[in-house]
Amino acid sequence: MPELSMNNPVFATYMIAAAVMILKIMGQGWMTVYRMLKSDSGLASPEDLQVGIINKNPDASQLELNDYVDRSRRIHRNDLENIPAFLVCGLLFVMTGPELMYASIMLYGFAATRLIHTIAYFTAQTHEVRATFYTVGSVIVMVMAVQVIMFSIDYL
Amino acid sequence: MPELSMNNPVFATYMIAAAVMILKIMGQGWMTVYRMLKSDSGLASPEDLQVGIINKNPDASQLELNDYVDRSRRIHRNDLENIPAFLVCGLLFVMTGPELMYASIMLYGFAATRLIHTIAYFTAQTHEVRATFYTVGSVIVMVMAVQVIMFSIDYL
Amino acid sequence: MPELSMNNPVFATYMIAAAVMILKIMGQGWMTVYRMLKSDSGLASPEDLQVGIINKNPDASQLELNDYVDRSRRIHRNDLENIPAFLVCGLLFVMTGPELMYASIMLYGFAATRLIHTIAYFTAQTHEVRATFYTVGSVIVMVMAVQVIMFSIDYL
Repeated sequence: MPELSMNNPVFATYMIAAAVMILKIMGQGWMTVYRMLKSDSGLASPEDLQVGIINKNPDASQLELNDYVDRSRRIHRNDLENIPAFLVCGLLFVMTGPELMYASIMLYGFAATRLIHTIAYFTAQTHEVRATFYTVGSVIVMVMAVQVIMFSIDYL
Repeated sequence: MPELSMNNPVFATYMIAAAVMILKIMGQGWMTVYRMLKSDSGLASPEDLQVGIINKNPDASQLELNDYVDRSRRIHRNDLENIPAFLVCGLLFVMTGPELMYASIMLYGFAATRLIHTIAYFTAQTHEVRATFYTVGSVIVMVMAVQVIMFSIDYL
Repeated sequence: MPELSMNNPVFATYMIAAAVMILKIMGQGWMTVYRMLKSDSGLASPEDLQVGIINKNPDASQLELNDYVDRSRRIHRNDLENIPAFLVCGLLFVMTGPELMYASIMLYGFAATRLIHTIAYFTAQTHEVRATFYTVGSVIVMVMAVQVIMFSIDYL
């Protein structure tokens, strides 16, 4: 019976794909910080208009929406709509005992689509390019979720 | 001792409730895509105003907020504020060894409130209706979290 | 070999830190509800302008952005950018078999930074204060994620 143990190579594969996706989410926060500091704009709160290390020359326009910074927040939002569901779905998928090759394609495949989606988004590729990678990643999660349901029903 | 194994019917119950909620999150993304394509509006990025398969007649007003599309994004946001916490909380709750009947009520109960909340939201029911189903789902997660803490303290 | 079992005190530590963070996320939703009711503003949807228990004197300005309510939503968003990734990362980190003392510092340390971050945010401290606690929490998650990858590679 499949288990959540390091002796199960599918679980080790999941651990790596999941940890890469966790770094992806956290890294996106840092891209926002970098763009905010570099452009000196895209601040989130009124109190950020105080003079300090982060903001040397405050100006009310810094609270306005700025595409350079907001783009990173939109990528982050898109990540949050997809990655946390993947992180849990992948773990449950391991319990269904998939073949290692199939599991690797699904788990690393999802991770790859999210990384490419981010590159497509921050280089402002067309909506079609972004949509394609979003779609593949989303379908992978949904297929895994359906397999989890089909498998688990027999154990109720 | 309770465990994360298919031999534990509470875990199988969690697997199903969690996978349904994962499909809920991913499906909400597709409702946004459907509404964006159907209404030809609610686009997120300046580059989406290029002519392409998704957007045949670009127009600057497509970037404006549109309640039909934004409603789906608001439902999605509400999901993200509740479902990822549930997905992990449910898993930890399984470790506390709850009775199958009680666990089923909590896990399927949460899933039901989220599905009804979405129906109430996208048919624009009153704030009171939406708030009721939000409340029940939120309380279920908080009760499970408190039980996890009470149970785990003895194992430190 | 480390395992996801109550016999592993690192896992029990994770259970507590994770459950506290789940209560943090859910509680933030309730802070938004409280501020929305108290200020009678910051409503999210057009249909919320109907007379009812929640809204006794509807007025179109209630749909406008209100910093008092939006501040709670921004804290919530910041939570969602950090806590779900932590919840899964902490679980995977348990599988790497860390020392109990080190694991406690990482897991409780993250939880502490998020609680202090929220206090700093809702009392409108400077951006530097908020950024400091965000940074410590974010680095903890990233360090754990890197350790998960380094550890798991040997089991492929």
